[in-house]
Formats: sequence, structure tokens, C-alpha cells
Amino acid sequence: MSIPPVTPEVAPEPDYENLEAKNAHLDRSKPYPLEGLLVVDLTRVLSGPTCARMLADAGARVIHVERPPKGDDTRAMGPYVEDGSSEYFRLANVGKESITLDFTDADDFAFLKKLIAKADVVVENFRPGVMAKLGIAPETLVQENPRLIVASISGFGQYGPMSSQAAYDTIIQALSGVMASTGFPDGPATRVGTSLSDIIAGIFGYSSIVTALVARERTGKGSTVDVSMLDSTFVLLEHGLMDALGLHERPTRIGNRHPFMYPFDTFEAKDQPLAVCVGNDHLWKVFSEALGHPEWVTDERFVTNSDRATNWADVKAAIESVTTTDVAEVWRDALETAGVPVGIVLNVDDTRRLPQIIERGMVKVVDGREVPGSPMKFGTWNSYGAQHDAPTLNQHGEAIRAEFA
Amino acid sequence: MSIPPVTPEVAPEPDYENLEAKNAHLDRSKPYPLEGLLVVDLTRVLSGPTCARMLADAGARVIHVERPPKGDDTRAMGPYVEDGSSEYFRLANVGKESITLDFTDADDFAFLKKLIAKADVVVENFRPGVMAKLGIAPETLVQENPRLIVASISGFGQYGPMSSQAAYDTIIQALSGVMASTGFPDGPATRVGTSLSDIIAGIFGYSSIVTALVARERTGKGSTVDVSMLDSTFVLLEHGLMDALGLHERPTRIGNRHPFMYPFDTFEAKDQPLAVCVGNDHLWKVFSEALGHPEWVTDERFVTNSDRATNWADVKAAIESVTTTDVAEVWRDALETAGVPVGIVLNVDDTRRLPQIIERGMVKVVDGREVPGSPMKFGTWNSYGAQHDAPTLNQHGEAIRAEFA
Repeated sequence: MSIPPVTPEVAPEPDYENLEAKNAHLDRSKPYPLEGLLVVDLTRVLSGPTCARMLADAGARVIHVERPPKGDDTRAMGPYVEDGSSEYFRLANVGKESITLDFTDADDFAFLKKLIAKADVVVENFRPGVMAKLGIAPETLVQENPRLIVASISGFGQYGPMSSQAAYDTIIQALSGVMASTGFPDGPATRVGTSLSDIIAGIFGYSSIVTALVARERTGKGSTVDVSMLDSTFVLLEHGLMDALGLHERPTRIGNRHPFMYPFDTFEAKDQPLAVCVGNDHLWKVFSEALGHPEWVTDERFVTNSDRATNWADVKAAIESVTTTDVAEVWRDALETAGVPVGIVLNVDDTRRLPQIIERGMVKVVDGREVPGSPMKFGTWNSYGAQHDAPTLNQHGEAIRAEFA
Repeated sequence: MSIPPVTPEVAPEPDYENLEAKNAHLDRSKPYPLEGLLVVDLTRVLSGPTCARMLADAGARVIHVERPPKGDDTRAMGPYVEDGSSEYFRLANVGKESITLDFTDADDFAFLKKLIAKADVVVENFRPGVMAKLGIAPETLVQENPRLIVASISGFGQYGPMSSQAAYDTIIQALSGVMASTGFPDGPATRVGTSLSDIIAGIFGYSSIVTALVARERTGKGSTVDVSMLDSTFVLLEHGLMDALGLHERPTRIGNRHPFMYPFDTFEAKDQPLAVCVGNDHLWKVFSEALGHPEWVTDERFVTNSDRATNWADVKAAIESVTTTDVAEVWRDALETAGVPVGIVLNVDDTRRLPQIIERGMVKVVDGREVPGSPMKFGTWNSYGAQHDAPTLNQHGEAIRAEFA
């Protein structure tokens, strides 16, 4: 995926040497909110590891159990950095410990059971039924240890007519309706440019586990948890769900614009597009003046929001006749000064450099590697997230075996 | 947003009369995981209300405090159903109670403080600083009631150089990098077709609150919570983050295909596209045979995954020369039978009818209205989500005033 730049860089490289001074809001000496909890992470690839990584970021001890001899599939997936380690594996496994266990080996299986007996949470993302075949059915584990939370993440869920089907992110994006909702009316249904369905299932897995932990702390009872990629992606929809559930209407793609408000869209500049959100007539006046066209407010096509929403293509053409004459930063600065909500459409390689992202600790350096921070910030608790790099395969195997033997 | 169908309907209307028999896995008589917790919901529009709605779905009592005389802004936003109620408001407020309070009125403000004194959680999504101006700064509320969780959801977070800027979903999608990552190389950066940044901030708000509740149950200490739309959207990225953070490379848009595996993409059929995920040579053989072209496996352009990823445009053309000759359902059935991961690109109006969605309770009827279910399914706890429609304005005002007076 080494691809040449398509947009110019808009922010200078951050001063990584002084990152800690810049994210000083995040006091790394505070206790973590989930400190003292033990998680056995039986997951692989993306959805399950993301869930367990969030538990590690919140301060739980997460032991990633990997299959010998190669471990998690993503260790063999690029991109790789100069020491040969996989960025894919890193992204979903920062802050965890690693041990290899062969479930078909009687000693290793007995050790796994010992580990689970001490755990607060088990997370898995095998296909439904595999845990039972391995002799560790979620329901059985909770029966044996009534305070345990056992979370299963899968494509379609643990039951239902599609539960045994293979699920990949692209298939779930297709089935959920998000792909048909994304893109332009005259263009194709468009995949969101990240494995949104995997990642959101990981996030809902985390939410569910922590919810079950609250209930456990209050009642003493553990639980199984069953989260699916399809369910999790379906509830991300907004106008699509309103139309389909409320009105039984079939929404379609409308590109980057808002369905009712205009100008609420992206606009081309000389170099790269910018997003503008003008939600009322006052902002429209301010916006028109900032772009040097005060006469727009009395143009009969553009007077009210309803006029502008109806004639949005004319509004867009008028705006772009101005914005394409100079670079996005010029218009960003002019509109920001005028008080109009505006943002350049950034490449993530620029997003990572935003002073806001740096100050929030959303990019941090652990064991010499840049990784994303946690979006969960607490006044009372450590919000820095994990402070160690993803483990090498079986890095903690010997120590864990000694501790739990 | 009443738009004519762009794709044919692919599933019959579900039998809503017998919905409860179909989602019987969800035992509605079980206790909820967050039962007994009281939430004061000071939010409006989408991100904050979504967070508080998740708390209601998990069984907390959520009191939505609205400003007289009109209440939450979304009550005045369409689409509307036949009784005049807003689907927009419904989507984010199912299962809550409503009371109107005028914070500038001394009696109402005193009542608000009484309500907060009894609460476990307060959620707000004003601009940073507004809570302090109102006399209810989050830090102060936690000082006054050390077990309280006060969660703030905002565009950029409570601190940092951008914290006071106005944020709308489209602007955060632009700044986060998700928009530049979505779409085709020869097309524009594309907004995800839902207010993803608002909704994911609501979900991370929920995750953070529940995390803080676990810590509170274990230590007795409450906390402020600070979640931003920008932080929350940034961490949804996957290959983009790997490239930008691991390699300092600038990822670009690649449409619907996978960066390394092929055919892992969407393909046009006679009526609507379908997604196919062929991740290895065995599946490629099975896939080629199912499409009636066993010779593809020995075509020198297509032998290994690496060949196919390099020559993906040729692979795509070959596949679409077949798939465009018949409708997507035909190919879906053929590939499913052969064991190839496949899914039609569905309009959400078809997604809502999928037997899998119905059986999982992801569409349910409460007080006569169809609403989405909760993706958090628990073995021990009620997973049906809220059992009541969104409230009318001040529907529970009198009862709440009597109860907390």
C-alpha cells in the first residue's frame, strides 16, 4: 500500500521528542479504570483483537493466547515496519501479553482452563460452535465460574439463519445497508474506507463486556455476551434507518451533502476539498460575505435554506466558482475568522499531525512506536491507554506459565 | 428524503404481527444489566442523545431534560411519521423519560440540582465551557457528589487548540481522514452515508461511562468523562492508521477492493452489485467453477493471489462479464452453495427485512413503532433494549417533579 501522495501535506511533522509535554493532560501515573481485571484473549485478526485491545487500553491485564507456531494471522499481514513486525498486528494488540498454547495438547489445554478459572473476562471470535468443539463452550465456562464474562464476536451472531455463514468486513458492509448509503447518486455503492464492520463489532464487544462487568459488580453474576458485525453496523445508520423503519421508504445515496440543509457539503478548492456547514440564514450571510459575494443572500434562488436545498447544485456551482481560485487553507482561514464551521478534507497522514490530535494523546509513542491513543478520557483515571508495544509471539509465555502453573 | 427506489426489493415485508415469536431468544422478562441506575440526560441532537439512548437500552432510567418551550432540536427535524412525531428524535430517544426545565429559572435550576444529586450519571453535549457557565461544571458536580459520573461529548474535546470550534459531522468526517479514505481513486473523497462521527462519539461516550461505572463499583470513585467526535472517528481507521503512523505514508482511496487480496470487491450484476471475498487459491478455484469458468485458475494473470491483486482490473472485467448476465440473487445463491463468502449490496430497507435481523431483534416494535434493537446481547441479562417509544415533550414532567421534589 505504498502509494504516492494525492494531496499536499498541510501540517508539519509533530515534534515527537516532546510528545509527553504536549499530551500532559493525560497523567500516566494515575490508576487505570479497569486495573486488577484479567482478560483471556482467544481472538484473532481484527474484530476480537480490537475489543481486547480496548480492555488493555483501559488498564485490564490482557493475555493474548495464540496458536503455535505462527500465532495470530495478522502477524503475517502487512504493512511491516523496519524490524519486520506487522503494523496490522500492532494496531489491534498494543499493550497485551502473548502466550502460545496448542489447544489439542492436553497439558496446554489444562493450562488454558487454569487461566480461564482465574479470569474476569474471556473474549473469542471463532465461528459460532467452535468454542463448544474445543471443549470451552461459553455457557459452560460461565456455569463453571459464575462471575465470568465470556464474550463472543462474530459476523452474524451466535444464532439465526445466517449465523454459520462466513463474514468478512466487505460482506457485512454490503448487507448492512451502509455501502448502499455511501457515495454519489450517479456513482456506485461505496465501501467505507476502513474495516468499519470489524472495528465497530470490536467496540460494541467492549461496550457489552464492560456493561456485563457493571452488572457483575452489582449482582455477582457473570454472563455470556454475543455481538455481531451485522447488528453493530446496522445501528450506525441514521437517515437510512429513519426512512426504512419509520416510513418504509428506500433511502438512496446523496453524496457528501446534507439531505435538508445547504450549503452543508464539500467544495473543491485549488488543491483539495473543504467541508462547510451552513445551517441557518445568518451563517449564509456571513459565509457569502467571507467569500466576497454578499449579493448571494438576495439571489432569489438562495434566500432561504429551503431555496438553497432545492437549488443546491446552483449554490454549489456558485461557491466552487470562488473556492477553486485558491487553495483550501486560504478559504479555511477566511471562513474560520468569519465564524463559519469549516474543515479541510484531510488525509489521515495530516490528521495525525493536527495539534489537537497530539495534545489529546491520540497519537502517542510506546516502546518507540507510534500508535493511536484511546478516545476514552477520564478525570479520575489514567486515560493514556496502553504503555507498551504489541508483544512478540509468546513473549510472556514462560512468565505466564510460571505464574499460573 | 422521500426518494424513489434505486434497487428492487429483495426480501418480503416481515410479519410484524408475530415479531415476538421470531425474536424469542431475547427474553423480555429478564432483568437489565444497568437496572437501578439513574441517568440525567442534558443532551440534544445526535451524539449525546445516542449515548443516553444506549444507557436506556441497557436498562438504566434515563431522564431527558429538555429546554422549554420546544425541547430537543430534533423534535423539529424530519422525517415525520403520520402522528407528527419526528423519526429523528425517536431514533436517539427511545425508552427515555422527558421533563422540561428552564435553567434560567431559579426553581427549575434548584430542581435540576436535586435530580443530579440522586443520579449515577449525567451526560451532556454542550460546547466546552457551557456547563460551567450554567453553574454545573462537570468537575464541580463530581466534587459535590464523589460517586457521580459526568460525561461530556463534544466535537474536539474539552481541551486543546480546536476545543472551542463548532463541529458538525461532515466537518469531523473531513478532518479525521475517513472521508479522504472513502471512495474511488478517480472520484471525490466521500462522506460515509450516515452521521458516523456523531454516532461513534455517542458509542464511545457509552463505553467510557460504563467503564467509569465499573471503576466506581470497585473503588467508590466517580469521574468526569471527555469524549470527542474527532478522537472517536480517528480510531476507526485501519490501513490508513497503519500507513500513516507506522510508515509515515499517505494512504489513498482504493474504492471497494481489498488492498492485498483479490477478488475481494463488489461486482455488478444485472440489477444490483454483490460483494465477494475470495481470500485464497482454494476459494478462487471454487469461485471460478461456480461462475462456469474453471479455466480462470490456470490463466497466467490469475494463478496466485499476488497475480490477481496485481491484475485486479482484468479479474474484475472477467467476473463482471459473467455476473452482469443475470441478477445478483442468482449469483448469491450459486456462490453460497459453493461456499464462497458473498453478500448482495442491500438497501437498508432490505436489510431491515433480513430474517437474521428480525430474529436478532434488531428491528422491534415498541408502542406501535418500529425501532432498531440493541447490538449488545447478554446470556444473563435482558437484551431486548428499551420497551417504550421516545417520550413526548415533558411527558413525565409532572411525575418526575413529584418524585424528586
